[in-house]
Amino acid sequence: MRAAIFRNGEIVVDEMPEPTPGPGQVLVKSLACGICGSDLHARKHAHRMVDLAKFLPGRKPMDLSRDVVFGHEFCCEILDYGPGAQRKFKPGTHVCSLPALITPAGIQAIGYSNENIGAYAERMVLSEPLLLEVPNGLKPEHAALTEPLAVGIHAVEKANIRGDEVPLVIGCGPVGLAVIAALKIKGLHPIVAADYSPARRALAAKMGADIVVDPARSQPYATWAEHAQMSPEQKAARPPLQAMLPALKPALIFECVGIPGLLQQVFEGAPRDARIVVVGVCMETDRSEPFLGIVKELNVQYVLAYTPEEFAYSLRLIAEGKVDAASMVTASVGIDGVAKAFADLANPEAHTKIIVEPWR
Amino acid sequence: MRAAIFRNGEIVVDEMPEPTPGPGQVLVKSLACGICGSDLHARKHAHRMVDLAKFLPGRKPMDLSRDVVFGHEFCCEILDYGPGAQRKFKPGTHVCSLPALITPAGIQAIGYSNENIGAYAERMVLSEPLLLEVPNGLKPEHAALTEPLAVGIHAVEKANIRGDEVPLVIGCGPVGLAVIAALKIKGLHPIVAADYSPARRALAAKMGADIVVDPARSQPYATWAEHAQMSPEQKAARPPLQAMLPALKPALIFECVGIPGLLQQVFEGAPRDARIVVVGVCMETDRSEPFLGIVKELNVQYVLAYTPEEFAYSLRLIAEGKVDAASMVTASVGIDGVAKAFADLANPEAHTKIIVEPWR
Repeated sequence: MRAAIFRNGEIVVDEMPEPTPGPGQVLVKSLACGICGSDLHARKHAHRMVDLAKFLPGRKPMDLSRDVVFGHEFCCEILDYGPGAQRKFKPGTHVCSLPALITPAGIQAIGYSNENIGAYAERMVLSEPLLLEVPNGLKPEHAALTEPLAVGIHAVEKANIRGDEVPLVIGCGPVGLAVIAALKIKGLHPIVAADYSPARRALAAKMGADIVVDPARSQPYATWAEHAQMSPEQKAARPPLQAMLPALKPALIFECVGIPGLLQQVFEGAPRDARIVVVGVCMETDRSEPFLGIVKELNVQYVLAYTPEEFAYSLRLIAEGKVDAASMVTASVGIDGVAKAFADLANPEAHTKIIVEPWR
Repeated sequence: MRAAIFRNGEIVVDEMPEPTPGPGQVLVKSLACGICGSDLHARKHAHRMVDLAKFLPGRKPMDLSRDVVFGHEFCCEILDYGPGAQRKFKPGTHVCSLPALITPAGIQAIGYSNENIGAYAERMVLSEPLLLEVPNGLKPEHAALTEPLAVGIHAVEKANIRGDEVPLVIGCGPVGLAVIAALKIKGLHPIVAADYSPARRALAAKMGADIVVDPARSQPYATWAEHAQMSPEQKAARPPLQAMLPALKPALIFECVGIPGLLQQVFEGAPRDARIVVVGVCMETDRSEPFLGIVKELNVQYVLAYTPEEFAYSLRLIAEGKVDAASMVTASVGIDGVAKAFADLANPEAHTKIIVEPWR
C-alpha cells in the first residue's frame, strides 16, 4: 500500500507492507486524517522527542533510522478483523478511535511509533474496544476533527472551572479554536482570544470567542482586564486586605501557541493568581522567570490529549452540530500532497486544518 | 539608632534616624528577627528584583542607591503609638505582624523597601490592625518563627490536599522544614523528604518527615514510589485504560530549594499527573523542558507568603507547642553579627535559622 512516510527528517511517499490486525484488532481504511501541529513539531524536533523519552517510563521512543507514519486525527472504515475479535461493527462502518493500540505489551501510541502506523497510509490497524461508530451520517473529514476538539475539551476540563473566571485564549490555531469551542460549550463568558492572524481571529469569533484581540494593535492582557472587572457586589464582598488589590475576576489563560518564550510572556502579562493551562506543545527548551510566577502565585497546568470519555463526547458534539468543527477545515489533499501541506500550514492566513485523504 | 543596613550590595552596620509612627501605626522595638533565604537572595540578586518589579503593577521597586533594612520574620515589643491609634495593646506587649504596612498609598512591604525598614534595626514601625499578641509567654526568638512557618502552612494550603496524596519535599532548609511541619499538622503520611545535608535530614525527621532521603545515595523519586504504591483496593477501582499505568498514589512535590535547574529535575523525576508546589524562590532565569510537563500533565503551583489567617494560625501552632519551631534555631547574633551570619548560612551543616537580636 501507499503512505506518506516520515523518513530521514522528511515526508516522502512510498509503498510499504500491508498491516495485519492482531488479536482483538481491526484492519481499517483511512478515510480522512487531520494534520496536527504535533506532526509538524515531530518532523522538526524528532530527535528531541527521542531524547526526552528517557524520562518517560514505559514509552518506547521512535527509532529514527526506521520509517514512521504519522496521522492520529482520523476517521476510518472497517475492512476486516483480526483473530478473536467480537466483530461488533460490520465491515463498511465508519469509526473513530483514540490514537492508541492495545497490545500484549501494553497500550501504545499510534502515529509516533515504528510499529503502529498512523492514518497517512491507505490502511492501518486499530483496537476493537476503542472503536466509536460515527453517528448521524457525519462526513469522515468532519469526524476526523474529533481528536483536535477532544484536546480542547480536555484542556478546559483540566482547568477545573468554577464559573467566575474570565478566559483568555492565546493563539487561535486548531488547538486554540478547540479550546474556544469547549469554553463556549461550558458557557463561560466573555471568551477573550488573541491571534496575530485576521483569518484566525475571524475563525475564533465563529467558534465562540466574544472578544478577539490583535496583539499587534492592543495588549491582550489589558483587553482581558477591561472585560474582567468585578461587579460592585463582588468588590464589596472582599476581605479588607484583598480590597487593596485590583478588582479583577479570576484569570484563566490558555497558552495555545507552543513556542519558546510564550510562557514567559504569559508570566509577564498575567494578573495575580492566574491559572494558566499549557495546551500548545513546545518541543524546545524554554526559559522563564520563576520569580514572576512566585510573586503572582501563578498556577500552570500542562495538559495532553484527553480521556476516552472526552473523546467520545467530542465526536457527539460534532455529530449533533453543537460544535462547528467543519469551519476549521481549509483544504484536503491525497498522500502525494502531505509534504506540501506540512509546508503550507506555516501560513496561518492560508490554512487552519488540512485533511489527508489517502484513498484519493 | 543602629541597624544592619543593605548598602551597595553589602550588609553594613551604621546609625540611622529613628522611625516615626504615622496615623494608625505603632513604634516597636525589634526583639528577634530570623534571617530568611529571601534576604540572602535579595542581597545577591537585588538588581533582578528591581528589574522584574516592572511586571508587578502597584509594586514600588527598591532604589538600590539608597539604604534598605531587611528583616521580615520578627517579634517586637510595643513602645509607642502614632496619632489616631486605638492602643489595644499596652506598651511592653510582645507582638508579631505580617511584614506589611498599611499606608495612605496602600499596603506596602516591610523589609524590601527604602521607606519601611525591617527588623534588623533596633526599632521599626508596624500597622496596629495587623498586630497579633504573642500568647503563652512564648519567647521572642520562637515567636519570630511564625513567618517562616506560615510560608509552609500556606504552601500546603495552596496544594488543595484531598487526602490520598503522598508528599515529597525536595530540600529541607527552613522552607522545606516548615512545609514538613504543615504536612504533619494536616496528617498526610508518609512524608518523604530529601536533602544532601545530614543535619537537615535529621531536622526533617524531627519536624515530621517519615522517610528521609540522601539524594547522593538514592533517587528521591524512586524512594517516593516505593512508599506510594496503591492498595489492592485502589488498584482494582481503576478504569481499564488507567489500569495499564503504574499503580501509584498521587504525587505532591514541594520544591523548597529555589535554584535554577531544580524545577527541570522535578520535571524529569516526577510521575505522571504530579502536582508540584514551588515554594523555593529562584531569583534567576530558569530553563525547563515543557514537553516533559505536557506529556506527564504536571501541575505547577507557585506560592508566596500567606494569608493573615494562616499567619495567625502559625503563631498559635508554635505557642501551643504543636510545631517544634525552636529546633530550627541554630544561632543568634546582634546587629554586628548579621553580615557574618549571611555568610555562615551558606553551610547547611552549620546553620538552619539564625536569629538577629538588635537590642544585644
